[in-house]
Amino acid sequence: MTTLIPVPLPHQSYCIAIRAGSRLALPQLLAEHTPLRPNAPALIVSNPQIWRHYGCAIQAVLEEHGWQVTPCVLPAGERYKTLKTLQKIYDAALAQRLERGSTLFALGGGVIGDMTGFAAATWLRGIAVVQIPTSLLAMVDAAIGGKTGVNHPQGKNLIGAFHQPRLVVVDPEVLATLPPREFRAGMAEVIKYGVIWDPQLFELLQSLPRLDRISALSVDQLASILQHSCQAKVDVVSKDEREAGLRAILNYGHTIGHALESMGQYRVFNHGEAVAVGMVAAGELAIALGYWSETEAAAQRQLIHKANLPTTIPSQFDVHGLVALLQHDKKVHSQKVRFILPTAIGHAEIVEQVPSELILATLKTLQR
Amino acid sequence: MTTLIPVPLPHQSYCIAIRAGSRLALPQLLAEHTPLRPNAPALIVSNPQIWRHYGCAIQAVLEEHGWQVTPCVLPAGERYKTLKTLQKIYDAALAQRLERGSTLFALGGGVIGDMTGFAAATWLRGIAVVQIPTSLLAMVDAAIGGKTGVNHPQGKNLIGAFHQPRLVVVDPEVLATLPPREFRAGMAEVIKYGVIWDPQLFELLQSLPRLDRISALSVDQLASILQHSCQAKVDVVSKDEREAGLRAILNYGHTIGHALESMGQYRVFNHGEAVAVGMVAAGELAIALGYWSETEAAAQRQLIHKANLPTTIPSQFDVHGLVALLQHDKKVHSQKVRFILPTAIGHAEIVEQVPSELILATLKTLQR
Ligand SMILES: NC(=O)c1ccc[n+]([C@@H]2O[C@H](COP(=O)([O-])OP(=O)(O)OC[C@H]3O[C@@H](n4cnc5c(N)ncnc54)[C@H](O)[C@@H]3O)[C@@H](O)[C@H]2O)c1
Ligand SMILES: NC(=O)c1ccc[n+]([C@@H]2O[C@H](COP(=O)([O-])OP(=O)(O)OC[C@H]3O[C@@H](n4cnc5c(N)ncnc54)[C@H](O)[C@@H]3O)[C@@H](O)[C@H]2O)c1
Ligand SMILES: [Zn+2]
Ligand SMILES: [Zn+2]
Repeated sequence: MTTLIPVPLPHQSYCIAIRAGSRLALPQLLAEHTPLRPNAPALIVSNPQIWRHYGCAIQAVLEEHGWQVTPCVLPAGERYKTLKTLQKIYDAALAQRLERGSTLFALGGGVIGDMTGFAAATWLRGIAVVQIPTSLLAMVDAAIGGKTGVNHPQGKNLIGAFHQPRLVVVDPEVLATLPPREFRAGMAEVIKYGVIWDPQLFELLQSLPRLDRISALSVDQLASILQHSCQAKVDVVSKDEREAGLRAILNYGHTIGHALESMGQYRVFNHGEAVAVGMVAAGELAIALGYWSETEAAAQRQLIHKANLPTTIPSQFDVHGLVALLQHDKKVHSQKVRFILPTAIGHAEIVEQVPSELILATLKTLQR
Repeated sequence: MTTLIPVPLPHQSYCIAIRAGSRLALPQLLAEHTPLRPNAPALIVSNPQIWRHYGCAIQAVLEEHGWQVTPCVLPAGERYKTLKTLQKIYDAALAQRLERGSTLFALGGGVIGDMTGFAAATWLRGIAVVQIPTSLLAMVDAAIGGKTGVNHPQGKNLIGAFHQPRLVVVDPEVLATLPPREFRAGMAEVIKYGVIWDPQLFELLQSLPRLDRISALSVDQLASILQHSCQAKVDVVSKDEREAGLRAILNYGHTIGHALESMGQYRVFNHGEAVAVGMVAAGELAIALGYWSETEAAAQRQLIHKANLPTTIPSQFDVHGLVALLQHDKKVHSQKVRFILPTAIGHAEIVEQVPSELILATLKTLQR
């Protein structure tokens, strides 16, 4: 049975279809839930690893249903999320003579999803994109909400556009091949949704013995985690399509997270690991400022532990440097440091002007 | 006195301010007609020639009013309307630390306007752009309507986005330095508006002895031409923000025009010249199909003559090749050739499936 999560938007709504094996039901899902029809050439954008696992079978079912679809396989990795790689999608779009009615299928993690979405936003000033996220992070986060883009050599996601997908196809089966560290990274975002939005998801996560690898979860547990997480993101973004108020709470754990990622040059911590530590830090700040209870913060920390994600900052990190980095974070409004702080499981608030001294002291307590 | 043309749009309206000297009243116009304020860094994007004539004075008035604005001067010419040149705007945006509240000022012709608009559409997923068009074509066409973009090495405007400006500042004075051939090119679009939309504009153009250079027009005549032309474009695009139905009539003269431009490798004909011949050809097709009267077609031809624009196709052009090119035009819907044909001065219709034989015969009659 397919779980359908509708994403209501003022201009163009779409839905997220979650089901084991859904990637192979793509033609039916398109026919039932989108206006897209196989009468214009299409591209499937992916990377070599993902294509090797899943590409041909998806291409084959699409072709069986009359889609004329050509693979566009890009080099893997965040460092290829650039204007230069984008050019390859444009080149393929030209070579295959894509038209206004054409579709780009994004088969991959957030990197492929963001680039393909941006290419779709900008080719012929906007063609359709269908997201088939293959990483846990892309399923619960990157594929939903319409943010697309590429990196500037000196900053992440500086070049981008809002462009909503026509359909998001979540197939838990593909997580089987996801590297474990990537699985844990996605789990950080799942825990985030539990803390800031969905107490039921938080309880579900508490009830599970392990969160650090897919093999520890039953099919139903995984499906439930995906449904709650996708719904959380949808709830937030559909209330606030363009980042303004509410959507900011999705940055929970990310303010310090981004600083940690950047200081560790994206090697010490991956995104999810940095967010995990960021959530612990935000939790401590929330306690210190009287917003949150120690009990709930401890419960959060336990989930992060169960996901085998870090909760501390390596001793060689310069915490003064971290605080300085916060000043340059994109989410900083006119030099004041702004935080998303939890106030209860399932609820978070935007707190402007958290004092730098408190941040510094908190980061120090987290160093090991 | 400033003429203000409001551009009503569902999401965010803006206005076009037309007045001799308006470029130097930019700070006041911003304060009165936009929400933009000088509290975030800004860029003025231009090219070397235009910057030399007008750049410093505009920068100076902005700075006098508290704007912190840095020039970003790009190489001139359509061949630099690329992702690569765009990168230079992004680099400047990064170097000047532009924020969500920052503004890009586009000071130039359509090339600068389209690139700057696209950079604004995509930097931080969208910042404000103010258009200060300096060519006649940019004033009456490119700066209005929100289409932005760059070229792909193998096709014009294939990469782009819709992004509305916050203000368009039209200052007829800057046309004094516009090369005459560029002035005439813009006049082709002006004549187009007379034919497809505004009979009053058509009459005004008929009443003038010459249309081929700015010095032949009084300040009032020029202002009137600009007002009618901008209003025509606004009427059409505000009824149809994203290209669908009505907006297509703006392609009058452009179907054959694009083929002529491309066959002459953008050297034999510039855009306006090609459109001029394209309008003559469309006029002949309209007569042949019984849509239009010979008298009105002759009147259109006379205006094109007065603007010293071409009305014939050079004998060395391969007309069969031209017809083949039409099959590949972006505006072709599933292989049928679609034309915009006039039915009366001030009115045009979309005609699907014009027979290739008729097109071929018509083009032959225009060859000299
Ligand atoms: N658009 C948004 O709203 C949004 C939100 C969050 C993150 N992002 C972006 O997403 C990106 C991170 O996404 P990510 O974590 O998915 O990274 P990613 O796309 O680089 O994928 C991580 C790694 O896992 C591999 N992989 C993915 N799925 C696989 C599978 N099923 N089997 C085997 N290998 C698989 C990929 O090849 C890659 O090596 C960043 O660029 C980030 O900016 C975007
Ligand atoms: N966005 C749209 O809706 C739209 C509509 C029509 C055309 N366009 C685009 O506009 C571009 C053509 O615009 P254009 O005709 O203005 O070309 P352009 O920008 O290349 O300008 C033509 C030439 O005139 C020079 N110039 C411009 N203003 C001047 C001035 N005041 N004094 C001296 N020199 C001046 C420029 O430096 C350039 O050499 C094309 O790229 C086309 O695709 C866009
Ligand atoms: Zn994240
Ligand atoms: Zn034109």
